[in-house]
Amino acid sequence: MKIKIAIAGYGNLGKGVECAIHQNPDMELYGVFSRRNPQDLVTVFPETKAYSINDILDHKDNIDVVIICGGSATDLPKQTPYLGEHFNVVDSFDTHAKIPEHFANVDKSAKEGGKIALISVGWDPGMFSLNRLYGNAILPEGSDYTFWGKGVSQGHSDAIRRIQGVVDARQYTIPVEDALIKVRNGENPELSTREKHTRECFVVVEDGADKERIENEIKTMPNYFADYDTTVNFISMEELKANHMGIPHGGFVIRCGNTGKNKENTHIIEYSLKLDSNPEFTSSVLVCYARAAYKMNKEGMSGCKTVFDVAPKYLSSFSDEYMREHLL
Amino acid sequence: MKIKIAIAGYGNLGKGVECAIHQNPDMELYGVFSRRNPQDLVTVFPETKAYSINDILDHKDNIDVVIICGGSATDLPKQTPYLGEHFNVVDSFDTHAKIPEHFANVDKSAKEGGKIALISVGWDPGMFSLNRLYGNAILPEGSDYTFWGKGVSQGHSDAIRRIQGVVDARQYTIPVEDALIKVRNGENPELSTREKHTRECFVVVEDGADKERIENEIKTMPNYFADYDTTVNFISMEELKANHMGIPHGGFVIRCGNTGKNKENTHIIEYSLKLDSNPEFTSSVLVCYARAAYKMNKEGMSGCKTVFDVAPKYLSSFSDEYMREHLL
Repeated sequence: MKIKIAIAGYGNLGKGVECAIHQNPDMELYGVFSRRNPQDLVTVFPETKAYSINDILDHKDNIDVVIICGGSATDLPKQTPYLGEHFNVVDSFDTHAKIPEHFANVDKSAKEGGKIALISVGWDPGMFSLNRLYGNAILPEGSDYTFWGKGVSQGHSDAIRRIQGVVDARQYTIPVEDALIKVRNGENPELSTREKHTRECFVVVEDGADKERIENEIKTMPNYFADYDTTVNFISMEELKANHMGIPHGGFVIRCGNTGKNKENTHIIEYSLKLDSNPEFTSSVLVCYARAAYKMNKEGMSGCKTVFDVAPKYLSSFSDEYMREHLL
Repeated sequence: MKIKIAIAGYGNLGKGVECAIHQNPDMELYGVFSRRNPQDLVTVFPETKAYSINDILDHKDNIDVVIICGGSATDLPKQTPYLGEHFNVVDSFDTHAKIPEHFANVDKSAKEGGKIALISVGWDPGMFSLNRLYGNAILPEGSDYTFWGKGVSQGHSDAIRRIQGVVDARQYTIPVEDALIKVRNGENPELSTREKHTRECFVVVEDGADKERIENEIKTMPNYFADYDTTVNFISMEELKANHMGIPHGGFVIRCGNTGKNKENTHIIEYSLKLDSNPEFTSSVLVCYARAAYKMNKEGMSGCKTVFDVAPKYLSSFSDEYMREHLL
């Protein structure tokens, strides 16, 4: 009996989930549920079934877990509490400041429905959060550092695209190598925003656009760029298409702490990701947490959960015995 | 109400646990239980109470968790099943091949006593095992690599000391940089034992000892050195004491895997440790898993568990709400 997974929302993340399910022999893809007309949906694998999101409750008895692949701004705050009452669900809600509110809403409906709802799953929040927690628990006296990149920030790329005269743009977030080295050396540096990351922009503009004004608008944009050292490169659409169509990302979580009678010994724990495709990696994390949601619900658990609540064994398709023999 | 922790066995690991408990304000050290005469025990902190291990059952009602700091070869196979019936316990059993047998023995007694027994806790087995599990679950199609070092191997140092004419020795295990680079580049290399690690030995010999014979005995020693490129340095006792008294260690767990319709995207997950003191870091891991053992038993769980069975939240002294707000 394979675990039947449905996908709600079909953008880059949904496509990544579709691919990831094919890599997990204990799962099968039930289908994709979208707001678009099912007939118009071009899926990665032609055999994937497409349905209207409006009909999803009709399939309630046939689906084990729904992976919700909507956006955090407007989709997930509505979809996860709604679907979480009827299905085991997993989402990648990543608006850090609103996690407590989202948790409370989802917890209420998941408990009412007797289902498991796993929120904020992915790599940050997600695997990076786990590493912050493990690092803090093991080395209670120490400092945390999270660096992101090198990778494409969708939000920053969108912000550039909204500037008048810009046709298209990619923004890369890049950790400052010198800061990383100091942290790895156990120097416990205090780092400002500017000292941790730089921002590099590749911008395609309209013919005759005022490049000086555009560069200035980017570099002084509050919240997005003003607090960073930002480089702006104007390139042609051909170059953008040739060299900047990937969605790589990654980053580092480092915990530096001390132990010993007089805190004389220093320890560095580092977790890093180097990802060719940000959405496909996030999807792969979502899929193994879907397995966990299914198994935990089978054991009688319900309510809203995060990665902190999930015992690692639930993520694996291996038996407990196999894991102890081969991975421990 | 603080969690009351007892230490059974008082070597480097026991001393590390004694220090680590002082860094965790929600815990208190109940005392050290040793085979030695309690009056003869010199503890790191003078206020630490010392008892005979023979009397430990008399303290049953006053102790929440016993951290068992004995050796894997002869101590833990007896102590963990015995103490696990009467106390929540944590051990660092690290004989990989015998984990299934140890698990079965401990599980029986912990279930009979209604206690939690967490075995094979530390960094390998322990944090490295967790990272192998997470990596395999997220990227099911990929390769695992574990490198150890640079660090002192106690077992290999002991093996050198048993050679005739050797007064003292330290052996460092060192990962081969070129192999690490290939793995990080996603090249998926197949690596022999020799290609992954080198071994560097610092040896103090008796006056007039036959250095050529000793070097040859080291380099050809089966299991320990014969399969590795080994360097032997003869040094004075003064130099050994000046430069080789620390017990550093560390290593790398790397998962390299592919995703996408045609497996076209590569992802690298890397977890690394750089430790000034191997026993103190292991102790710090043991202490936060002692918290987990206590909390899980309070919730009614019992039996033998490994790091795979422990939801990360149990390791932390923070509330669930605090973790979601600040670490997620």
